[in-house]
Parts: sequence; C-alpha cells; structure tokens
Amino acid sequence: MKIKKAVITAAARGERLYPVADTIQKAMLPVIDIDGLHKPVIQIIAEEAFSSGIEEICIICAPGDGDRYINAFNSLKDNLNNSFKRVDWARAQAEKIDFLLGHIQFVEQKETLGYGHAVYCAKQFVGNEPFLLLLGDYLYVSNLLQKRCAQQLIDLATQEQCSVSAVNPTIEHQITRYGTLTGKQLPSQQGVYQIEKIIEKPSLSVAELELQTPGLRVGYYLCFFGMHVFTSAVFELLEKQMQQQATNILLTPALQELAQNEKYLALEMKGSRYDLSGRHGYLRAQVALGLAGEAHNETLTSLVELLAEANGRNFK
Amino acid sequence: MKIKKAVITAAARGERLYPVADTIQKAMLPVIDIDGLHKPVIQIIAEEAFSSGIEEICIICAPGDGDRYINAFNSLKDNLNNSFKRVDWARAQAEKIDFLLGHIQFVEQKETLGYGHAVYCAKQFVGNEPFLLLLGDYLYVSNLLQKRCAQQLIDLATQEQCSVSAVNPTIEHQITRYGTLTGKQLPSQQGVYQIEKIIEKPSLSVAELELQTPGLRVGYYLCFFGMHVFTSAVFELLEKQMQQQATNILLTPALQELAQNEKYLALEMKGSRYDLSGRHGYLRAQVALGLAGEAHNETLTSLVELLAEANGRNFK
Repeated sequence: MKIKKAVITAAARGERLYPVADTIQKAMLPVIDIDGLHKPVIQIIAEEAFSSGIEEICIICAPGDGDRYINAFNSLKDNLNNSFKRVDWARAQAEKIDFLLGHIQFVEQKETLGYGHAVYCAKQFVGNEPFLLLLGDYLYVSNLLQKRCAQQLIDLATQEQCSVSAVNPTIEHQITRYGTLTGKQLPSQQGVYQIEKIIEKPSLSVAELELQTPGLRVGYYLCFFGMHVFTSAVFELLEKQMQQQATNILLTPALQELAQNEKYLALEMKGSRYDLSGRHGYLRAQVALGLAGEAHNETLTSLVELLAEANGRNFK
Repeated sequence: MKIKKAVITAAARGERLYPVADTIQKAMLPVIDIDGLHKPVIQIIAEEAFSSGIEEICIICAPGDGDRYINAFNSLKDNLNNSFKRVDWARAQAEKIDFLLGHIQFVEQKETLGYGHAVYCAKQFVGNEPFLLLLGDYLYVSNLLQKRCAQQLIDLATQEQCSVSAVNPTIEHQITRYGTLTGKQLPSQQGVYQIEKIIEKPSLSVAELELQTPGLRVGYYLCFFGMHVFTSAVFELLEKQMQQQATNILLTPALQELAQNEKYLALEMKGSRYDLSGRHGYLRAQVALGLAGEAHNETLTSLVELLAEANGRNFK
C-alpha cells in the first residue's frame, strides 16, 4: 500500500471561520513556513503532503473557489517574479507555486451538506486507493525534526496496511469541540491504538462513561488531531449515510462503522496543530510555525523585542 | 488651527512590499487592533486618525484599487453580518466598517512618480487646510495609555500652529533606510526640535558630519517615524519640484525647503511603529498590537504557550 493522493477540505463557509476574511482570503493568508519562506496557508498544508510522498492533491472547495485559488496563486507568482527578480527566495517560492499548481485539482462541494459530504466529494479523485485527509484550516508542526506529521501517519498506515487517524491527548474541558475516541493500545507500539469507539463532540459525562482510555493522564482523552489516512471503504460508509439522510452528513459515524468493519488505528501524533478558524488562531499559527523552523532565531528575537517594548510601555 | 483631514498613502507597488500578497490583500490582512477586534490593516490606520479628531480621510491608491477596497470591505461586512449574527464584536466591527466607508475617499495615483507625487495627489482633497499624513503600511502603537501617536502629533501641531513630523531616535546602522534630520531642541519642551536639516537615507559618514543632534544617546539620530502634520504649503513645494523634474518626486527635499520657509517642528514620538513591508513585518505588527491593547493577556498567554511548545520540541 502506497499513499499517493491527498484530499484537503476547504469548503467551510461562515460559521466555523472567524469572520475576518472570506474562505479564499483566509487560505491565502501569508505565514512563514518551516523552511523560512512566506507562503499562503493552503500551500503550506499542500507541501506538508508533498513532502510526505503525496503526488496528487484534491482540494474540496465551495463553488467558484477553484478559479479563485488559481487566480490568487497566479497573482502572487506575478508579484514574486516582478518584485524581487534577483532574490533567491522569491524565485524559490515562485517555483513552489508552479509545482503546486501542476499537482492540485479542485472539486466543488455544490451544497453544504456536512463535513462527511465534503469528504465524499473526493470519491472520484481518490478511486480505490488509500488517501491522506487534511483540513484546510489547520497547520501542523511536528516534534520530530526528520519526520513531519503527515509522514508519521503515512508511515504507520503503510506499515499496518490500514486506515489510521492522528489523535492527541486532550484535556477534558476541550473535548466537547472534537471527535473523541477510545481503543486498546497495541502491545507492541507505544501510542498506537486499535480504535473501538468514536463519538463526535461528546459531553463530559458521556466521555467519562464511554471514552476513557487506560494509560492516559487523568482527565485526558484521545481527540482527533485533524489528519487521517483512510482506505476507500470510507466512501461506501458515507454513501450509506447519505442514503439515510439528506443533510448534515458527518464523518464520525462513518468512522465508527469503519472501526467495526476493518482494522482502523489511532496514532498519537508527535506534534501540534494550529486551528486557524478560532479567535487568535491565525496569530498563534504564525508564531508557532515561525518558531518551529528556519525562522526560529529571527522569530524568537522579534518576540523578545516586542515583549520588552510592551513591558516598557507599562512603566511610562 | 484644527486638523480635520488625513491622507494615507497606499499606492506602493512591488519593490517596497515584501511580495507575499498584492497591495490590497496586504492592506486587508487581519490584525488584532488595540480594542481587541480583528480588523484589516488599513482600517486600523484609519481609526488611529478618527480617534484623534480626524473627520475625513483620503487614501492615495493605485489605479483601480479604490473599488477593490470598497468591495473587500463590503465582502468582509457581509461575512461579519452572516457568520456570527448574534455576536457583539462582529456587529461592532461591521458598524466600524460602515463608519469608515462613510468617511473615506480614494484618489488614484495614475503613475508611480515617487512618494512626493503620491502625497501631491491629495492636494485637491486637502485644499488650504493642515492635514495628517500616514503611511498605508505602518501600524502605530503609543506608549501613552490615553494618547495615541496621531493625537500626540496633532496636539503639538495645533498648539504650535505649524507643521510637525514625528521622529524617533534611531541607532546609526538603521538610518540609511529613513529620512534623517537634525535641529535645535526647544528649551521649553522636552523632545521637540526646530528642524534645521533633513537628508533622505543618509550614509553614515554624511550623518556623522551633518546630522548629529546634541542630547541624543551616542550613535543615535532622529529619523522619521512615518507620521506628519503638514500645512498645505507642502503642495507648493512639491509642485515646484515637479516643474523641475518629471519623475522620482520625493517628499524629503520639499520638507527641507519647508524647514527653511516656515516653522517646522519634529516631535519625538512616545510610541513605536511597525513597518508591514519588511520581512517578518506582518508577524511583528500583529504581535505588537496584540500585546498593546485589550488582547494583551490573551496574546501573552498564547506566546508563552507557543514558546513552551517550541522549547519542548528541542528535547524530543
């Protein structure tokens, strides 16, 4: 099993997004990537996938957004080519955009029928292969110098020949915002679980009764990290759900069924993810990526200077 | 003398801007303002002016950009109104956009003939009144809780009935990037100078010979902070320059002449300004404003968490 395709869901409109920009603007907001280059959010996510062996990416977007992305990237490329012709990083970034545009395609989600439906829109692109699923408003930072988050996940899925979802232990007061699961830790592998039960945004009392996982710190649960590898079986399960209901198609019930039907693991991710859709999410993501990569020293220096300035202000 | 008009220059294209976005996108990038609301950069600059008694603003922009700004603001307003209908801050921000759109106008700089020419484009808007001049890619943070940077400047200009430029003492290795000046400190007022000589981006050796100002720390010079109040006399001086040359119309030579013709003061600004056009400029501005205002505690908490996470990564 070789994982060559990735799907990025970027069709969210309205409610989930902190409304400081529309979806495209948000996906095109510049962030300093771990290679030190300023890039749009969506490009950073795509390059996480490419750097982990992915060859083709499908972005699920709102109607009309595909062309908007392409225009926005072309306009950025023009800027890079015109502005700093002789600067290496501008040329490097323009080349990365060319590569990106050559290896992505867009599929429109015509109606907002739920997150599961957004994923289902990738069925034709994916075919019968396993695929990596990423979220268009999450940025990921690995704790491992040599292995990005997507690579950690793909390595396990390839080795175990099955679906794997990334999870991280999450303090109980936050679990009501995430898909939460429990399972049996594999005896041979630290941080790998055979998934037994998944509940979307559980209440604390439900979680206490049904989702405790031995071995975690007290008050912690395993929550989705926002990155998965699935076999194409997930599409059949989503389809079944779509035959039963017309709207609000969720991913989690399909995954609950997947866990019952086939081997489906959870991997404790060695890394952090930054949700751009929350309040301060964009600022946090920028600082986190700045600190995580080539720009570490420069970012840290900036932060210390700015903290000193802010502190100085209190004494005047 | 009452200062009711402000001019914001936002026509810069290419060279000066770090090319991660085009001019409009850059001006519309969201930043957490000192009131804790996420707003586009250009709105934060405009509100600095409004909060200091300005009633009308003219934005000097590239051809076609006026409509692009209006569309971008209307689209943001739609997002705010649709997404979080019942959230106070979204309504507050939508109302601020309405106020903004009611009090700004756009003037196009048809050709890029230099910064002095961009300012000259505001001649008709300004008429014979004094006006506040701000830069479209600078964000300002005051050290005084009760008085923003623009207010500090306007107060002195109103009191002294003359043109005033904000300056800050700048370490010598940075002065080659700024307009640099010297003058006699007024005996009665700490940090206020009668301007005698201004040189645009001086070399260190020229500065040492001609721009030393007694009373500053060794190795420091007075550089423009990027905020001015001018009498309309500045337009005549720019016009004179435009009769002598067809392009590369700079502001500094006109200001040198202004200093010879009329009372023209420099005010050491109690505050900092963040240049969005530089590398890491956007990240720095966001963190600085986050730390400076209502969002201080939340921003500081985020930074400490992120620093801890980044630090933890080094031990794994």
